[in-house]
Amino acid sequence: MLLESLRTAVLEANLELVRRGLVLYTFGNASGVDRERGLVVIKPSGVDYDDLRPEHMVVTDLHGKRVDGTLNPSSDLDTHTLLYRAFPAIGAVVHTHSEFATSFAQSGIPIPPLGTTHADYFYGPVPCTPDLTDEAIQSRYVHNTGQAIVDHFVTNNIDPMAVPAVLVSGHAPFAWGKDPHDAAHNAVVLEAVAKMAYKTLTLTPGHKGVSQALLDRHYFRKHGATATYGQ
Amino acid sequence: MLLESLRTAVLEANLELVRRGLVLYTFGNASGVDRERGLVVIKPSGVDYDDLRPEHMVVTDLHGKRVDGTLNPSSDLDTHTLLYRAFPAIGAVVHTHSEFATSFAQSGIPIPPLGTTHADYFYGPVPCTPDLTDEAIQSRYVHNTGQAIVDHFVTNNIDPMAVPAVLVSGHAPFAWGKDPHDAAHNAVVLEAVAKMAYKTLTLTPGHKGVSQALLDRHYFRKHGATATYGQ
Amino acid sequence: MLLESLRTAVLEANLELVRRGLVLYTFGNASGVDRERGLVVIKPSGVDYDDLRPEHMVVTDLHGKRVDGTLNPSSDLDTHTLLYRAFPAIGAVVHTHSEFATSFAQSGIPIPPLGTTHADYFYGPVPCTPDLTDEAIQSRYVHNTGQAIVDHFVTNNIDPMAVPAVLVSGHAPFAWGKDPHDAAHNAVVLEAVAKMAYKTLTLTPGHKGVSQALLDRHYFRKHGATATYGQ
Amino acid sequence: MLLESLRTAVLEANLELVRRGLVLYTFGNASGVDRERGLVVIKPSGVDYDDLRPEHMVVTDLHGKRVDGTLNPSSDLDTHTLLYRAFPAIGAVVHTHSEFATSFAQSGIPIPPLGTTHADYFYGPVPCTPDLTDEAIQSRYVHNTGQAIVDHFVTNNIDPMAVPAVLVSGHAPFAWGKDPHDAAHNAVVLEAVAKMAYKTLTLTPGHKGVSQALLDRHYFRKHGATATYGQ
Repeated sequence: MLLESLRTAVLEANLELVRRGLVLYTFGNASGVDRERGLVVIKPSGVDYDDLRPEHMVVTDLHGKRVDGTLNPSSDLDTHTLLYRAFPAIGAVVHTHSEFATSFAQSGIPIPPLGTTHADYFYGPVPCTPDLTDEAIQSRYVHNTGQAIVDHFVTNNIDPMAVPAVLVSGHAPFAWGKDPHDAAHNAVVLEAVAKMAYKTLTLTPGHKGVSQALLDRHYFRKHGATATYGQ
Repeated sequence: MLLESLRTAVLEANLELVRRGLVLYTFGNASGVDRERGLVVIKPSGVDYDDLRPEHMVVTDLHGKRVDGTLNPSSDLDTHTLLYRAFPAIGAVVHTHSEFATSFAQSGIPIPPLGTTHADYFYGPVPCTPDLTDEAIQSRYVHNTGQAIVDHFVTNNIDPMAVPAVLVSGHAPFAWGKDPHDAAHNAVVLEAVAKMAYKTLTLTPGHKGVSQALLDRHYFRKHGATATYGQ
Repeated sequence: MLLESLRTAVLEANLELVRRGLVLYTFGNASGVDRERGLVVIKPSGVDYDDLRPEHMVVTDLHGKRVDGTLNPSSDLDTHTLLYRAFPAIGAVVHTHSEFATSFAQSGIPIPPLGTTHADYFYGPVPCTPDLTDEAIQSRYVHNTGQAIVDHFVTNNIDPMAVPAVLVSGHAPFAWGKDPHDAAHNAVVLEAVAKMAYKTLTLTPGHKGVSQALLDRHYFRKHGATATYGQ
Repeated sequence: MLLESLRTAVLEANLELVRRGLVLYTFGNASGVDRERGLVVIKPSGVDYDDLRPEHMVVTDLHGKRVDGTLNPSSDLDTHTLLYRAFPAIGAVVHTHSEFATSFAQSGIPIPPLGTTHADYFYGPVPCTPDLTDEAIQSRYVHNTGQAIVDHFVTNNIDPMAVPAVLVSGHAPFAWGKDPHDAAHNAVVLEAVAKMAYKTLTLTPGHKGVSQALLDRHYFRKHGATATYGQ
């Protein structure tokens, strides 16, 4: 079976989203990329999680052309492939409609860095894209969703490996990482961070977030050459 | 046993409501209709879910006259039958007191379409009926609850298959669908949509909802001749 | 064993509170009364729920004098016994620190009847007692807590069987019923009602509650000679 | 194995945090101290809870020098050891990013004593430290976090055994107790208290808390020579 270990990792990332309560019915999808072969492995569309097996995963090229599998890929495929083309360092993408992160996306506001839980994972606000124009919605909508993400990161000079998640306005979050396990982990932490941001902002409206010094300290504790966390 | 497969489907829809946390004790009911025979199958009133079996389901005609079964039907029967008579395309009705949808019903406000989760299922706001008059409450209350729903959809020209749920002011939601599985699924999604709408509206009060273009795109992605979602 | 079936019913009511998530660690207690013998059965103080057996229940007279058992009774005993003496129709009392009902008690505000879930169980607001005076706190505090409940019901002419629960200001709820099963059921419904009231009041501040006609209709649907709910 | 029973107690406290939903992934840590030997037992950094065994616990002296074990200690070790040096009565320290207590810490506000659940455990507000200066963050950050806690308790004359928890501004709570079981218990109760305080303060903004008489009554019911709670 082509890309067997990546299929297994992508399936496992999808199941992690279910276990952590981020996914209702089939409202979510995870994918991974094999950079050497230029192939993407993604969940099929609308299949019950209980029935998912590695062989059900769909394999496409980096432009979404199916090269293996008979099922339809996730309807969000074009967003995933565009992110892979634009962000060469990422190895996996996850999309959920998790309750609190989606509520921020619906509100159209970023999640400010309100504490160290956030700072350990996201080096600055988790941004929210601007609304798509009617034209962008009416033409290549799924592709244009990805383009809005990429444009927002480029325009605002945000490193996608330092802020591995985004809120799509009026829609829901995407998260990514170096591999499917990491991307799913980031999606789970994003939801935890969003939960606490919701409480913080309703308790103390207008809170702008922690200092740059605290952001630096926590982010570099877990990332980069000076990381000290873990074994 | 009369209507055996419909009884099983109605029981299963009732149990799905319990599994998804939409029902406390016996606060909910699901029914289905056999359009050819003009018969409705509905949960009995006030029986523990653990004890429910297909043979406990009550069979009535479209005006609520019991034609099979010895138990009393759900006390909301007259609302169900009125919806079946008024909305010929629906095949099942579900009623719950699920926490967030009921909170909107208690507030007497519709759930605006704040994101794509909503737009995938409900083509516009989930409406809230006006309060019943004292006279309507004091006479045929359960029937009049159904009438308030139907009047609101007719007056506002809402297609019940495009918006398969409603909030009854000061009471709780009803949802429906083409069959019991679909109606329960819509009730579960309604609760998820209400949860996120509550967070969105408390974060950004006055939010009016997404653009018509986004509503169109998402709704028609899952419905109608141009649907692309699923297998 | 004295009062064996009442001990079992009281234990079962205590366990129902745990199963429904109303009790953290040992923060709750249920009791029942045998009116013929004038005896109260109550949970012992501070014992883990996992270890509770019917023989651990403590038996006292209606003034709290222990007549059977070696363990200390719940520290809230004097509130329970006072309620039994003042409200002759009740057969059981339950006390929890359940999250949402306690939050209303901490806020010092009643839970208004915002919908039919409430109206099915509580015929009017769930009242909140006034704060105890420092003198009442410093003297017979537990007794005076019960006295504040009774005074509030008497002064405001509230029938304890029509409104089988109260919020003690700055403390937490008490609920009661005709037997331990019924009292625990009312405590569980109170928490569900409080959850929805919290959402309703934060969505639509100042909401005063449903009409008297709706209160009448729902309450008398389940209570009294004209009840139609259930089998 | 050195300090075997303390290792087991520390592991069990860590697992209690997971069971009670206070910890996501590895976001938490518990430690205990052997005062006679001057040794601290603490969870290793970034190890999955499923894999934790007593022998994985790390043993250090009171200045954080590892004296047994090969794994890295929790990255928060320097806060724990400073608390042990400054607060001689405490026997264990727990740190979590539990949702509601962390939200108060992110808001930078104390949790006022809004009811008797709080008063049974915390004799006054659960305080929140001032923000660390950039210099404190950029130098010995973890040590300085502990110093901010100790300074706040000393400056405000708070007895750490009467208020066995603190919120670190922009970060999360620490709790402590006479042993690991007690510290974990206090962290669990802190989260329950924070949950209810969040609801109370959003229902009734500006609520200042219960009277000193009620604080006294509840706190001394469970603590000190006149305690009457339990067996």
